[in-house]
Amino acid sequence: MEPGDFFAPVADELKTVESNLETNINSSLAVLQEASTHLIRAGGKRLRPAFALLAARVFVDDLKPIIPLAVALELTHMATLVHDDVIDDSKTRRGTDTVKQLWGNRLSINAGNFIFARSLALVAAYQRCDMIKILADTSTKICEGEIIQLLGAYNTRVGLKNYLRRIERKTALLISVSCQLGALLTPASSREVAAFQKYGYYLGMAFQVTDDILDCVACPEVLGKPTGSDIRQGIITLPAIYALRFSPYRQDLHQWLSSPEQCISRTDEILDLIIDAGGIDYAHYVAQYYAEKAKRQLQFLPSKPITQNLGKMADFISHRDY
Amino acid sequence: MEPGDFFAPVADELKTVESNLETNINSSLAVLQEASTHLIRAGGKRLRPAFALLAARVFVDDLKPIIPLAVALELTHMATLVHDDVIDDSKTRRGTDTVKQLWGNRLSINAGNFIFARSLALVAAYQRCDMIKILADTSTKICEGEIIQLLGAYNTRVGLKNYLRRIERKTALLISVSCQLGALLTPASSREVAAFQKYGYYLGMAFQVTDDILDCVACPEVLGKPTGSDIRQGIITLPAIYALRFSPYRQDLHQWLSSPEQCISRTDEILDLIIDAGGIDYAHYVAQYYAEKAKRQLQFLPSKPITQNLGKMADFISHRDY
Repeated sequence: MEPGDFFAPVADELKTVESNLETNINSSLAVLQEASTHLIRAGGKRLRPAFALLAARVFVDDLKPIIPLAVALELTHMATLVHDDVIDDSKTRRGTDTVKQLWGNRLSINAGNFIFARSLALVAAYQRCDMIKILADTSTKICEGEIIQLLGAYNTRVGLKNYLRRIERKTALLISVSCQLGALLTPASSREVAAFQKYGYYLGMAFQVTDDILDCVACPEVLGKPTGSDIRQGIITLPAIYALRFSPYRQDLHQWLSSPEQCISRTDEILDLIIDAGGIDYAHYVAQYYAEKAKRQLQFLPSKPITQNLGKMADFISHRDY
Repeated sequence: MEPGDFFAPVADELKTVESNLETNINSSLAVLQEASTHLIRAGGKRLRPAFALLAARVFVDDLKPIIPLAVALELTHMATLVHDDVIDDSKTRRGTDTVKQLWGNRLSINAGNFIFARSLALVAAYQRCDMIKILADTSTKICEGEIIQLLGAYNTRVGLKNYLRRIERKTALLISVSCQLGALLTPASSREVAAFQKYGYYLGMAFQVTDDILDCVACPEVLGKPTGSDIRQGIITLPAIYALRFSPYRQDLHQWLSSPEQCISRTDEILDLIIDAGGIDYAHYVAQYYAEKAKRQLQFLPSKPITQNLGKMADFISHRDY
């Protein structure tokens, strides 16, 4: 199964989002237009728009009013990606050159800001200040998460708590907000909106843990980037945290993972030790734990086929191997 | 006279803004707190808060409700400065080390985003979506301005129109919005709000032209950065545009200003040619032209001492030599 299958109930609306992404970055500056279009064309799973649309579809049939929100959520995500590529000095993303690689750091910083401002203007048009407040608070926390990740690089003493805080901010919060805002624009009750916010949060946690597993084990063609790219950058993810504690070779792991040079020269060796120690199995267990928590929130939502679809989505996300 | 003298009618409120700047960047992350605090302590003229407060004071006595806006405007300005320092690779600003210099590019990009998100949350709390819309559109244009400046570097063919568009986005728009939003939060009529928006715009243009003059002629101690820093970075400002057209040595100027190496090795020579060609006098003339336009908007505002103060402010800004 593909994630697209779960998005089938909102497939038409996702096509509209796709075409609106480009028209919403129309700028008189050709270079800005090119950079943004390049980023849109590089594609992505459009998870955040899909969740906003799916959440709304549980309560209403007409999703036209949700489209600008869905576009804004993807733009916000894209803005963080452009800045991330500068911060991480990334040359490729999803198998194609990054904006940073093609146009340089200076343009990328501005392009990220520009895309975020556009996203904001789209949300402002709803005239719903509660939505802006949620988006502003989420952005603040996402920035903090980035910094926690920066500060924790090559630090083999970071534990589970630090890791969970990082992935919450990196991924879970924006997926949570996508579900929450999608539901907020419908006649859903505040209890239902809260259930969607939590569903998105736990699902986002499951998603990022699984992403971190894939970074250790998936083949580069599937990932669109080299296997072990987290390790190469000194980012200590859940499988590594487990192995640092339980591997018989944990002393070697501590030494290698704290050294920027060894992280690059010994990536494959480190990956093997992590896998042998059971780090991947443990991370799978954690991903499933969050998927279950996500599914449990669905009991507070109307019992419909689309709600069951969201449950299957949670299972899929914590098991996916693409 | 000092700009502070013109701000006297709102001096107490500016002190409150100053203390609120720090409390509004409270983060659990020590490094973020340090970086932001460093930036606040490095000071600045707090022009944008002052204009928002002065505009409001024309219509109301109690400025408490304007304080969060004033803080948000300065935070927005500071966020752009932090990103600018990364983009321009600046080591000092206002005579002290930049955030970028002390904490590096990666933290600076995130710190800028964090500060902007905080600013947004402050404005969102007003529950006035029209304000958010104005801020989002302004941010979009400011980003475009940055890019126009990047693209035009070392391009000696850029003309007056390109320059005016650049400084509009770099400076005039945010000062204009400061005046506009300050008035918008009072019972001012829409005509009066519009007059303030234009006053701020023209005053901002006068301010930036004067800043560009000072970058050519003021001593480094006063500027807090080396004289000729624009030229060193290949930024072609108004005095240079004039000299490129009318200097008897314009061929040399074209050659030198299009070369990143010559811009650095011949900065003083270039400055001398610009001054001898009358570039500074011409720019002074343009600054005064905008100051006059700003003053003309004041006729649409209540005739009060504080309104006359705003007129004197425009004169001062276009003549200042600090």
